[in-house]
Amino acid sequence: MNKPQKTNWKTKLHEIIYGADTPAGKWFDIILLITIIASIILVMLESVRSIDKQFHNLLNISEWVITILFTIEYIARVITVKKPLHYIFSFYGLVDLLSTIPKYISLVFGGVHALAALRALRLLRIFRILKLARYLGASNNLVKALKASRAKISVFLFAVVIVAVILGTIMYLVEGEENGFSNIPKSVYWCIVTLTTVGFGDIAPQTPLGQFIASLVMILGYGIIAVPTGIVSAEYTSQNKPTPEPEKDKIHLNTQSCPNCSASKHKDNAEFCYNCGHKLNNE
Amino acid sequence: MNKPQKTNWKTKLHEIIYGADTPAGKWFDIILLITIIASIILVMLESVRSIDKQFHNLLNISEWVITILFTIEYIARVITVKKPLHYIFSFYGLVDLLSTIPKYISLVFGGVHALAALRALRLLRIFRILKLARYLGASNNLVKALKASRAKISVFLFAVVIVAVILGTIMYLVEGEENGFSNIPKSVYWCIVTLTTVGFGDIAPQTPLGQFIASLVMILGYGIIAVPTGIVSAEYTSQNKPTPEPEKDKIHLNTQSCPNCSASKHKDNAEFCYNCGHKLNNE
Amino acid sequence: MNKPQKTNWKTKLHEIIYGADTPAGKWFDIILLITIIASIILVMLESVRSIDKQFHNLLNISEWVITILFTIEYIARVITVKKPLHYIFSFYGLVDLLSTIPKYISLVFGGVHALAALRALRLLRIFRILKLARYLGASNNLVKALKASRAKISVFLFAVVIVAVILGTIMYLVEGEENGFSNIPKSVYWCIVTLTTVGFGDIAPQTPLGQFIASLVMILGYGIIAVPTGIVSAEYTSQNKPTPEPEKDKIHLNTQSCPNCSASKHKDNAEFCYNCGHKLNNE
Amino acid sequence: MNKPQKTNWKTKLHEIIYGADTPAGKWFDIILLITIIASIILVMLESVRSIDKQFHNLLNISEWVITILFTIEYIARVITVKKPLHYIFSFYGLVDLLSTIPKYISLVFGGVHALAALRALRLLRIFRILKLARYLGASNNLVKALKASRAKISVFLFAVVIVAVILGTIMYLVEGEENGFSNIPKSVYWCIVTLTTVGFGDIAPQTPLGQFIASLVMILGYGIIAVPTGIVSAEYTSQNKPTPEPEKDKIHLNTQSCPNCSASKHKDNAEFCYNCGHKLNNE
Repeated sequence: MNKPQKTNWKTKLHEIIYGADTPAGKWFDIILLITIIASIILVMLESVRSIDKQFHNLLNISEWVITILFTIEYIARVITVKKPLHYIFSFYGLVDLLSTIPKYISLVFGGVHALAALRALRLLRIFRILKLARYLGASNNLVKALKASRAKISVFLFAVVIVAVILGTIMYLVEGEENGFSNIPKSVYWCIVTLTTVGFGDIAPQTPLGQFIASLVMILGYGIIAVPTGIVSAEYTSQNKPTPEPEKDKIHLNTQSCPNCSASKHKDNAEFCYNCGHKLNNE
Repeated sequence: MNKPQKTNWKTKLHEIIYGADTPAGKWFDIILLITIIASIILVMLESVRSIDKQFHNLLNISEWVITILFTIEYIARVITVKKPLHYIFSFYGLVDLLSTIPKYISLVFGGVHALAALRALRLLRIFRILKLARYLGASNNLVKALKASRAKISVFLFAVVIVAVILGTIMYLVEGEENGFSNIPKSVYWCIVTLTTVGFGDIAPQTPLGQFIASLVMILGYGIIAVPTGIVSAEYTSQNKPTPEPEKDKIHLNTQSCPNCSASKHKDNAEFCYNCGHKLNNE
Repeated sequence: MNKPQKTNWKTKLHEIIYGADTPAGKWFDIILLITIIASIILVMLESVRSIDKQFHNLLNISEWVITILFTIEYIARVITVKKPLHYIFSFYGLVDLLSTIPKYISLVFGGVHALAALRALRLLRIFRILKLARYLGASNNLVKALKASRAKISVFLFAVVIVAVILGTIMYLVEGEENGFSNIPKSVYWCIVTLTTVGFGDIAPQTPLGQFIASLVMILGYGIIAVPTGIVSAEYTSQNKPTPEPEKDKIHLNTQSCPNCSASKHKDNAEFCYNCGHKLNNE
Repeated sequence: MNKPQKTNWKTKLHEIIYGADTPAGKWFDIILLITIIASIILVMLESVRSIDKQFHNLLNISEWVITILFTIEYIARVITVKKPLHYIFSFYGLVDLLSTIPKYISLVFGGVHALAALRALRLLRIFRILKLARYLGASNNLVKALKASRAKISVFLFAVVIVAVILGTIMYLVEGEENGFSNIPKSVYWCIVTLTTVGFGDIAPQTPLGQFIASLVMILGYGIIAVPTGIVSAEYTSQNKPTPEPEKDKIHLNTQSCPNCSASKHKDNAEFCYNCGHKLNNE
């Protein structure tokens, strides 16, 4: 409601790039989302030899276009933020940089394969845009339930790993190298494959005793899959319990971020950054 | 309660074909159900080469009988409906047509394989009849729970796909083409196979590092299978709760939208638009 | 509490064989349980060629001993029941007979393989003895929850089969005979293998499009596994709700069965059979 | 609160080794934890032939260092406990001994393979230290829920095994030796692999009838996985119900164990061992 003091192009650009409250900001996010998905599909297609052979030039040009777009976006982000260094060394700042430079490096050294794959990091950028997802209001309770059950699931998965190591060692002794259980790490790998009910079948017990122990492992795995499910289910049920009034106050629909310190999650009616006290651009 | 003006054969036929309230209507649905299932079994048997060789004529004649029955039913549906074009271009109208014509086309062009498979669409017709299932009263709460959790499960499955793309790219780099991870899409496919604990084993990691990452992927997949289960479980539990009255107060049944700015989701007792302050039409 | 009129050997034997309230009855059940398990292990060992070769005579003699024991038990059951024909043609009566005669038939015709396997039916007899399990009091709520969710799970599994048929037909068209999807039934079989996250890998999609559809099938299967779990979980939670007092009245600890009509599940203080009105032996 | 009578070095050492209330005791546990994990990694690496060849001496020396450390710890445990024999023949006493001696035996007999694997038992020692985990407060309700549902899950798993034996026998008859179902135990093994949705694919049905039965087995397995999940979920939900105050009284943060009989889980304000009445060292 309060008019901001100076609304120069930097502040406006910041609002478009970092916020999603204005129509321009929303469009920026949607276009960025599409560009990222397109670039991921490009990286995938490049790795398919037959497609790369036939459309090499087209793929190369498209990749350059996207790389240049991302470069412009990166520079814009650095310029419009008040503390550029803070952004550059933040998680998303590094992801933005690392997912853009491989193409430039390939210009100098030729198409270095391992670096090219860094471009897959672009996918991580989707999560930044998906603060949009909050509008859906869908995953709020879910995230809370997952956070509440994180410690318990960790303890559980830790126990699974210990069981896998002990059972893997036993299977190594029972089956031995001639049946594919060539060392303990591989045997533990097999045990995890079996406990999680994945069951590739690249290694499978051949001796009757081995198959008997494998049966026990499978039934155990079948039984313990109930544990993480039970945890999440119970936590989520308790998150769903009817005390919605105090909860509602906590929902932040405001996607704006501070032009000074990039902090987000401001209250809808906030006029100053809760983090640094800087004036927000509430137009 | 009100007697219809004209109860000619068209209205009667309409009631038999589209309704399931009269005994004749129920019998029509049951016979149709049996015919559809029989026709699906026919399509299946035809695809088995050895059976097709031995009983080709029998299968062909049965198929013609069913095709003619479906043709009669289709014509009857078009005639008895008051808006025939509306039916013809509806979803079920198209399914009815597409699942009937392949046999006629095969008469002209010879047994075109791909078209023959269109007959499998007949299976979709089962869902129309299964409004009968509502009589069982079994799946009502279930459907509500699934609808309530649809958004959350979509968000979850979307996250699974993103994780699969990132992990798939990593596995492509670690294992490489010589171990079957010949390109990123295939590697992502392997990752989905593993995360969902399906585990075909047509592609399996061979290097120690690859097997280590695969173990992490499997344990991750084992952990996250808890999420959709927890969601459905919690939603279904809350659908089952025996105190629906206080819940209803919180649900906003107000479907009104602002005449000025079209904003919706107004509170039930709202008199002014929360968005633009315009007076709402509370009649 | 009331002394029975005539306690001849028949009534006593009936109580030992059919009941589990007296110490003798309990011992009879325990010994029968052990004999059944031993006989199942025998049937299993016989099927292993190397073991059968080495210990053929030992296995043969043991099998004869068990067969004769079961024969004696069968005759005792027929004699002590008041309506022998009713027992002979009951489910358990037929199981008792069919699991005993194969050895006698093998005496006449030589070791007919298929008949020998009928002995595996003996395993079904375990369920009769396991009315003992009720003493544990463990599975009562579980059974109720399963019964309550039976209809819903059936509807769900029916939907899974329909989805499998449609997706199986699509995979047959996409992959074709050259990639192992040689006919629609086999393709539907593959689809069930995948949807249920079993994933044998004997058939696996080879074409990119097939692998893409397979990914969708897997994610779908991963999502819908939540449904039966959610149903059972919610039903079981509602069964667990704290109103245990009226529940307790329904628990039948009485394992006695009527000497006249073999009906079981009598109330603890019942003096006459609820089914035929015959006097029960309450000692 | 009460000063103990004699705080000689034995009592102090006992407190460090068996307790985790003092800083020294915590450090001892943490160092022990790291040593155990290091030793497990050593055992694993030794089993990998290529690594063992290259770093044989390094691995051998490290193993000797760890063995000697464990020997010292074992002796210290025996000395500081008041009833050494009670400790020596306790579960953890035997684990401590058996996981230490293989290296000494290998000195006498040469590297006996099977004995070397006994060192994997060291992993079990982790559970003793992880009474530390109680500080996290994470797994308390979980453990209660698991204990409450143990009986029900056992009954359920027992039923799964019976179903697997019956279905396995049927598959043996249907598929026969030529399709890999070479005997009943192997067929039952296949059935458990399938019911638990592991699905190795080393054995897979080849006949149409076998594949049809396998489909039923899979859908059955898909349906019954809901049962243990539902049990744990419901139990855990009921453990989570909001009556936390009386619960808190039951949480034992006291990690001290009796210097006389090694009993642990004393109340926080306990001054005498609840097991043998010996005075505890409450400093």
